[in-house]
Amino acid sequence: MLDSSLFLLTDLYQLTMAQGYWSQKLVQKEAVFHLFFRKMPFQGGFTVAAGLEEAANWLKNFHATEDDIAYLSTLKGASGSPLFSKDFLSYLATLRFTGNIDAVPEGTIVFPQQPLLRVEAPLIQAQLIETALLNLINFPTLIATKAARMHLAAQGEPLLEFGLRRAQGINGGLTATRSAYIGGCEATSNVLAGKLLGIPVRGTHGHSWVMAFDNELASFEAYAEAMPDNILFLVDTYDSLQGVEHAIAIAKRLRDKGRKLIGIRLDSGDLAHLSIQSRMLLDAAGFKDAVIVASNELDEVLISELKRQGAKINVWGIGTNLVTGGNQPALDGVYKLSALRDPGEPWEDKIKLSEQLIKMTNPGILQIRRYKSGEGNIADALYDIRTPPKEPSVIVDPFDPTRLTHVHKSWSFEDLLVPIFRQGKCIYTFPKLPEVRQTTFSNLSHFSVGIKRFYNPHIYTSGLESSLYYKKVDLIKRIREQVSSGA
Amino acid sequence: MLDSSLFLLTDLYQLTMAQGYWSQKLVQKEAVFHLFFRKMPFQGGFTVAAGLEEAANWLKNFHATEDDIAYLSTLKGASGSPLFSKDFLSYLATLRFTGNIDAVPEGTIVFPQQPLLRVEAPLIQAQLIETALLNLINFPTLIATKAARMHLAAQGEPLLEFGLRRAQGINGGLTATRSAYIGGCEATSNVLAGKLLGIPVRGTHGHSWVMAFDNELASFEAYAEAMPDNILFLVDTYDSLQGVEHAIAIAKRLRDKGRKLIGIRLDSGDLAHLSIQSRMLLDAAGFKDAVIVASNELDEVLISELKRQGAKINVWGIGTNLVTGGNQPALDGVYKLSALRDPGEPWEDKIKLSEQLIKMTNPGILQIRRYKSGEGNIADALYDIRTPPKEPSVIVDPFDPTRLTHVHKSWSFEDLLVPIFRQGKCIYTFPKLPEVRQTTFSNLSHFSVGIKRFYNPHIYTSGLESSLYYKKVDLIKRIREQVSSGA
Repeated sequence: MLDSSLFLLTDLYQLTMAQGYWSQKLVQKEAVFHLFFRKMPFQGGFTVAAGLEEAANWLKNFHATEDDIAYLSTLKGASGSPLFSKDFLSYLATLRFTGNIDAVPEGTIVFPQQPLLRVEAPLIQAQLIETALLNLINFPTLIATKAARMHLAAQGEPLLEFGLRRAQGINGGLTATRSAYIGGCEATSNVLAGKLLGIPVRGTHGHSWVMAFDNELASFEAYAEAMPDNILFLVDTYDSLQGVEHAIAIAKRLRDKGRKLIGIRLDSGDLAHLSIQSRMLLDAAGFKDAVIVASNELDEVLISELKRQGAKINVWGIGTNLVTGGNQPALDGVYKLSALRDPGEPWEDKIKLSEQLIKMTNPGILQIRRYKSGEGNIADALYDIRTPPKEPSVIVDPFDPTRLTHVHKSWSFEDLLVPIFRQGKCIYTFPKLPEVRQTTFSNLSHFSVGIKRFYNPHIYTSGLESSLYYKKVDLIKRIREQVSSGA
Repeated sequence: MLDSSLFLLTDLYQLTMAQGYWSQKLVQKEAVFHLFFRKMPFQGGFTVAAGLEEAANWLKNFHATEDDIAYLSTLKGASGSPLFSKDFLSYLATLRFTGNIDAVPEGTIVFPQQPLLRVEAPLIQAQLIETALLNLINFPTLIATKAARMHLAAQGEPLLEFGLRRAQGINGGLTATRSAYIGGCEATSNVLAGKLLGIPVRGTHGHSWVMAFDNELASFEAYAEAMPDNILFLVDTYDSLQGVEHAIAIAKRLRDKGRKLIGIRLDSGDLAHLSIQSRMLLDAAGFKDAVIVASNELDEVLISELKRQGAKINVWGIGTNLVTGGNQPALDGVYKLSALRDPGEPWEDKIKLSEQLIKMTNPGILQIRRYKSGEGNIADALYDIRTPPKEPSVIVDPFDPTRLTHVHKSWSFEDLLVPIFRQGKCIYTFPKLPEVRQTTFSNLSHFSVGIKRFYNPHIYTSGLESSLYYKKVDLIKRIREQVSSGA
């Protein structure tokens, strides 16, 4: 299906701008762009970065095929003449990515305004990769964050991702499965993700299995015979608690033959009540080890609620609300120019003004410094790599500049963006997915519980190192003056 | 990226059930499944069916590759022995789709409980295609519906789809673009969709273009020179109305050279106020033909609101809230068994009970009959093709059986499900996408305005032909008796 070249995975305006840069002799200009988001997803207190490996894979194959060029040559402008010139298309056919990329590793906890990725490349290249980078990082980051929230809600109990049927297209599903695993799911129902990404797969049977037999008991008996090593019964086709009784009846016969009931699955109804009743029935029949899997439009809030009500659920099956993001179906990630130069010249800082403070961008070449003490992470500061923080360093809240955080000498720190591409070549060794998943868990463990709340989470200190802040303010003033003078 | 076989685009339980059917000698059983949704998306009054062509393409390639089988042979059950037997995997490797499929064409208006697709096939095959069919139809139907709502809100003004950067993976984006076009968008920014699907592409420049120059005026001048045939300026990089003044200044110079300003784009701020002011400025300068494109988190409600406020917007750019579904990120489509037989035997009706009335399925082999008079569509009835409606026919509302609709002799009708596959072979000629888009428009035009409202839409009459209704009730009673007798 998608064995096509993905060079054209972009918005048309990137290509018209590219032709503009090319025709205006700006191709040699060098640019710095940052990819960041503005609002914390799910009104939460943290975000889990994801998608970098897929973005890097896309970038490794960044080149136009003959097909791509042939298609572009068919496009017309408003008056009917070709949209792209032949000379530009010849140039485009030879274009490769030659720039540098730094990014935070997948599984890293990040906050609004922090660059997940920094591109330093010829302007035309940096522009042409924008859309694909956003597509390949926005959605995975959203889903990894959602999964991490559900993982916290489940308090260490396994989460299974079952969302493929409600996912947004084929690799909408694949990407969701990968991101859900990074964020904390233990396994998926998505077999293609198992094959292509090595993620553990799980599953037993659905309602149609039960309906294919004369009655539920016969269907369970047949399933146990067919899959002796994987006996978990879906009990709600007709009546959940009667389904549990049927499961127990079969399990007793199996026990006599030395085989084992793994558990049951509830997929509808009052999961709190039904799971408690099911647990009592199973325990009374001597099946204390049998697990209860529950599914049905679950999300982190429902999982928390069910636990609060004493639901006896051991494994959580989550689908739609995980793979789509549920109450928030997109991360608002953007990709903004922050510095520009002619080769060999010093960088010129760039900023995008806006009437909304939150939409003002940060200028320069940015890095994130995370400060920590023995108790965990304390504060993050964005700084410009040309002017690294000097003692005594101060972090300014850009949305309330009266809020200052003084960096203490005893704090250690770590810089979060690491080199991924150098001169067009990928120099980073991507960790295996189980390792990325551990990164998420270990990252989360170093933050206070407050940021992990679902309602009114603690706002972690994440600001601008003071010299960056003052530079930004000066730049805004300068451009506002230009604007009001009509230039 | 996705040049992999897509046979494994499925949930693991479909494969474990398949092994179950195979080992229980049920592979020769024939089954009927229907794919339908339960709740109207967006609390709206109509839904636009989409995704069929991609689903059919997937089905045409339905077969396991050696790779797929090799992967499945590595999976283990709970005790560590292979999950799938060698004999079953050998059987699976030879499996092809040999069944029949009927479906409503893309662009058809549909209602809850109506089958978008009916599968009649050997049970094992019908089971194995469930997840992919749901994945490939749920999401497109959701997005086509969202686009149709926005199209109605824009009252015939063009909609451009700009959502790729917020879409859910690569072909999450492609599928969204295709579905948005079917639902009513005129063009997309997604160049890959242009190349692969022939959808018209549009775009001009972004903020980074403006920021790459010393000032806005210089950037507009350069853009006009670079793209003389496609001059539309994004004006909000620094100050929107000043941006409009700059656009006008350049446009006047262009006019002297016989070239033309196509328009401007607003991407932030108060779009009602800014568009009205921009229109006045453009008109006063003699650019009455220049269009105003607006974008910024638009959806159908915002578009309606802006129109109500007299906003002077000619073209609507819509992204995130279209390609993700926005306030509802998934259609709740399901796929349920409704009849079963041994080859040559009569069909046995099947039903799934539930404590929730809405989750009870409809038994049999279903078709949708749409009744119409001179004024348009009046009512839909689900009926079993073995017992087609006889005069005088009555339609029963399954959620309120006291509500009856008596079919009038003068009404004409159309049956919506048409043959797509026969004995495994696709026999349907898929219309080109512009034709599908026209189907959406023409379908919508035959329904009353009431169902097209966004708030409290009129509920179109869509029920069960009475003999189907009574059969369903009998079947529910029979199974409930079975359940209460503990069978």
